[in-house]
Amino acid sequence: MALTVGVDIGGTKIAAGVVDEQGAILERVKLATPHDSAQVAATIAEAVNTVRQGHEIEAVGLGAAGFVSADRATVLFAANMSWRNEPLRDRIEAMVNLPVVVENDANVAAWGEARFGAGSGRDNVVMLTIGTGVGGGVIIGGRLLRGHFGIGAELGHYRAVPDGLPCGCGQHGCIEQYASGSALTRIVKQGAAREPERAKILLGLGDGTPEGIVGSHITVAAREGDPVALEGFTEVATWIGQAMADMTAILDPGVIILGGGVSEAGEILVAPARKAYQEKAPAAGQRPLAEVVVATLGPDAGIIGAADLARDRGM
Amino acid sequence: MALTVGVDIGGTKIAAGVVDEQGAILERVKLATPHDSAQVAATIAEAVNTVRQGHEIEAVGLGAAGFVSADRATVLFAANMSWRNEPLRDRIEAMVNLPVVVENDANVAAWGEARFGAGSGRDNVVMLTIGTGVGGGVIIGGRLLRGHFGIGAELGHYRAVPDGLPCGCGQHGCIEQYASGSALTRIVKQGAAREPERAKILLGLGDGTPEGIVGSHITVAAREGDPVALEGFTEVATWIGQAMADMTAILDPGVIILGGGVSEAGEILVAPARKAYQEKAPAAGQRPLAEVVVATLGPDAGIIGAADLARDRGM
Amino acid sequence: MALTVGVDIGGTKIAAGVVDEQGAILERVKLATPHDSAQVAATIAEAVNTVRQGHEIEAVGLGAAGFVSADRATVLFAANMSWRNEPLRDRIEAMVNLPVVVENDANVAAWGEARFGAGSGRDNVVMLTIGTGVGGGVIIGGRLLRGHFGIGAELGHYRAVPDGLPCGCGQHGCIEQYASGSALTRIVKQGAAREPERAKILLGLGDGTPEGIVGSHITVAAREGDPVALEGFTEVATWIGQAMADMTAILDPGVIILGGGVSEAGEILVAPARKAYQEKAPAAGQRPLAEVVVATLGPDAGIIGAADLARDRGM
Amino acid sequence: MALTVGVDIGGTKIAAGVVDEQGAILERVKLATPHDSAQVAATIAEAVNTVRQGHEIEAVGLGAAGFVSADRATVLFAANMSWRNEPLRDRIEAMVNLPVVVENDANVAAWGEARFGAGSGRDNVVMLTIGTGVGGGVIIGGRLLRGHFGIGAELGHYRAVPDGLPCGCGQHGCIEQYASGSALTRIVKQGAAREPERAKILLGLGDGTPEGIVGSHITVAAREGDPVALEGFTEVATWIGQAMADMTAILDPGVIILGGGVSEAGEILVAPARKAYQEKAPAAGQRPLAEVVVATLGPDAGIIGAADLARDRGM
Repeated sequence: MALTVGVDIGGTKIAAGVVDEQGAILERVKLATPHDSAQVAATIAEAVNTVRQGHEIEAVGLGAAGFVSADRATVLFAANMSWRNEPLRDRIEAMVNLPVVVENDANVAAWGEARFGAGSGRDNVVMLTIGTGVGGGVIIGGRLLRGHFGIGAELGHYRAVPDGLPCGCGQHGCIEQYASGSALTRIVKQGAAREPERAKILLGLGDGTPEGIVGSHITVAAREGDPVALEGFTEVATWIGQAMADMTAILDPGVIILGGGVSEAGEILVAPARKAYQEKAPAAGQRPLAEVVVATLGPDAGIIGAADLARDRGM
Repeated sequence: MALTVGVDIGGTKIAAGVVDEQGAILERVKLATPHDSAQVAATIAEAVNTVRQGHEIEAVGLGAAGFVSADRATVLFAANMSWRNEPLRDRIEAMVNLPVVVENDANVAAWGEARFGAGSGRDNVVMLTIGTGVGGGVIIGGRLLRGHFGIGAELGHYRAVPDGLPCGCGQHGCIEQYASGSALTRIVKQGAAREPERAKILLGLGDGTPEGIVGSHITVAAREGDPVALEGFTEVATWIGQAMADMTAILDPGVIILGGGVSEAGEILVAPARKAYQEKAPAAGQRPLAEVVVATLGPDAGIIGAADLARDRGM
Repeated sequence: MALTVGVDIGGTKIAAGVVDEQGAILERVKLATPHDSAQVAATIAEAVNTVRQGHEIEAVGLGAAGFVSADRATVLFAANMSWRNEPLRDRIEAMVNLPVVVENDANVAAWGEARFGAGSGRDNVVMLTIGTGVGGGVIIGGRLLRGHFGIGAELGHYRAVPDGLPCGCGQHGCIEQYASGSALTRIVKQGAAREPERAKILLGLGDGTPEGIVGSHITVAAREGDPVALEGFTEVATWIGQAMADMTAILDPGVIILGGGVSEAGEILVAPARKAYQEKAPAAGQRPLAEVVVATLGPDAGIIGAADLARDRGM
Repeated sequence: MALTVGVDIGGTKIAAGVVDEQGAILERVKLATPHDSAQVAATIAEAVNTVRQGHEIEAVGLGAAGFVSADRATVLFAANMSWRNEPLRDRIEAMVNLPVVVENDANVAAWGEARFGAGSGRDNVVMLTIGTGVGGGVIIGGRLLRGHFGIGAELGHYRAVPDGLPCGCGQHGCIEQYASGSALTRIVKQGAAREPERAKILLGLGDGTPEGIVGSHITVAAREGDPVALEGFTEVATWIGQAMADMTAILDPGVIILGGGVSEAGEILVAPARKAYQEKAPAAGQRPLAEVVVATLGPDAGIIGAADLARDRGM
């Protein structure tokens, strides 16, 4: 049975797992991400070499936040590390003596979900990862969309609002500024500052101040019926529905998967997102729309997807 | 040598051609489109049967404006005819006794350009057809993006402006309302009404009134330096540049082809579009961008693309 | 006791009343508006001459939809009649033999409410008349804002949305397109078409189709809890709240009066409008805001305001 | 001849002048603004007491950045000092033994220009002060618009763009973010970073980097034909034109004065602003528009306006 290792390189943790052809994780390890970017490769290799003990491993897949080159060898630009044109594939191959492929983290998560999770068995899939930002992954005809330069499916960075909010990418009005967890927190903090009486449940979960609100409070408060938290979810979900409508115009997927931390709120987020999607889709009512589902693999999607892409490395 | 027939089904003309494997049109015929949609199939068959005389034909490809089913058999909804769920493939196969495939007209044009025109030899291509509306076609990894339901790459219908101009698709703010030939005409008519003195060249090409301005006047006037016409091109080109930036965020193509009647203005349109693209691309300056080129096949792109898709009909 | 006559010149009815110095209507008459604009002046005079019987009248005030000249003599442009530069004051003075002043209809309604209705005794008042469109009237330091050319306080026509919905005034994105009764009807019809199940109460009030929905249905349905009607009110109210925030930035009124047919919905409209106002006001939380109240004079505001402006005609 | 003293309280300088009834400054003094806000009142008094020597002074007017109470006694909130509810009138009266009035700085500048500068002899005036931000002042029927709470004419803070750029006032999309000197600098820096070749003149005025560009460079470079600087002016001017159109819809002024540092560019700014105003005005072409003029008093407008408001202190 052919096994591969998938590695999810996060800002705080590096998680590696041995994965089989059915997407099951047989073994796993988690190490702290070193503060010094120069040490990260060694820690990745350590994670791979630790977890591979006792298994015959064919290849290694790495999921990294940032732009990855079209040949899946180099991290051109990383969001949370100082890497620039980092030859990550070669470095890790030298340390683990196995074939390695590098892929964008949102892409590997999308691939994991499309193959073994919420999109299992589907060929035309869009995944939106709603975390601090908005990540994206696209599967078309069963193949991962990588783009000519390897930088495809940056779905959080098309322009949703002319002259809109400034974005870390240097532009203004990117959908990420409206449809993300950061947007949710921003909206809810403002709401709680304005109407503390209506946000009692929410404020009671932290230190009592709007500034003390964190993402997890919002989900808990919404479940308990806090109106300010619920309104925040509805506003962000409406933007997510618009993003789904836009992806349908362009890509016409059969299924759209909502993943990332914010999607853990489930129907509180998905119901209004689905409603907005149906309202905002082009030619709404005259065309079939994608199924909208929530991701099922949770944080394991990265390890599973990276491992599977390593297996299919010829694509 | 394997030959196929491509048919471009327009609102006023049905054009058919015999096309070889290099994309050359060996023979062609053009018939008027019947007013009665029920007669269109017979005219298509007549065109095919006329043009095929003396050639050994393998298959037929049809390009039709509208939504085409995923199995490339049925026109679900046509823009300029009364077809609804029209079984066009089967009807034509019965009349011409050859295998037939049906495809969206913007998709066949994109395929033609990507294979034999401005995108020749390129695997990751976006084509924007700037005519009355904005049509789109996408090639990823050498394959035409068709979408799960067959309705992919409706690139004119993602939302560019919240609460924006109403669109024929039932939504508001679609990019088509800002980046199309209709937008150009609307902008230039307003400009000429406001400042007839500055629009003298333009107004002199028609009946002297803003209402009398048609698309071809605008291109001619712009070439002669009419400031109102030039400003109109720059405004529309800026929106096209934004559309290209958005497509880059999502699809990361290696080349973007601008086609359709408006693109015949050449650098008057393309220079400001390219400038806006470079300004508006996500992470502008930190990533490579697609080449921006003008379509080279003109109106033949439809025939050539449809014929070639028929050849590759297994895809 | 000094009495004046006020006339409200509507598209279907011409209503005149004898009004005393406390704003009480002592006598009234209503005539059908002639289809032929050339006959309107005669009908106005007939209404005045009818109602004045048995009273000593000092002057006459006319409220007309459209642009009125700064000297309050001429209707420059009328919305619902073919008047252009109509010397209405002189025509009516010749027929009734009394001093006449002409004023914009939204201005007279605002004046009526500011003097004898919801803004009674207040010096800095903004009135938004939410009917088919959005009309406005502004009182500053106890004086009606008329503007240099007599065309002030067209509050429905500042731009709320760049590249937004087209407006009858020739521009795009005017607040009137989002904060009016027409906007409410448009939104609710779309909602009912999309989700007829949720709009059962609403659809049951008409012929069962979304097209059959009229304004009065929406208010009734909202009161009975129809979710589609309620969501429509909330959306329009949010735009009204934004308009109030913008008026506060510019004019800093002490009271804002919401009038017109849509305002008859009361708290269904006013509660979400007030909430949005508090959220959207500049420097929200660090400055006092205007009271938000509903008009109290109903359709009589026009007669009362016009009559009172005639009295104060020296201003 | 009755003289008054006007004081312009700036972030770096406190300028005072003795002003006669024709708006002439007979005597002036300028002192550095103390870093400690608690010392500012003493410095104001010192400036007044210095400049008044040898003149018979009737009253003192102070222009301060921030919200001023309706009774013109208290600075409720200051932009560039730590004052909150500062009883500035009483403090200064105690120190100079003269009647004092306090007014917002943009209001005093508008009053100065309306009385003795570009709007001399006009009764319905809007002034937009285009500096770092956008300040505003409004004169209606010859009286300064102060608002019910004294906070009127914050013309930079109505919303021009839904979901737009964040503003220091806590909202998003205020016109100040698009029509100000800060916007000009932001746009031009981006342009120079993108296209350094086209911005050679501009970059040559500073240290050669986009970051080194300051406001005065942009005006100089634009005069010398630098295309990036000129495009920046045109973009900002287009927003200013929109602001003027919006003010016309609401206030219908007879004259609009453009002041502040950015207006020193003259026709480079005013010509495209006037063009945009004519295009964007409601019912453009069917109604008269305001004259658009540049302020003529320069930085003296504050002293002159403040002094004159002190004279007219009964209003």
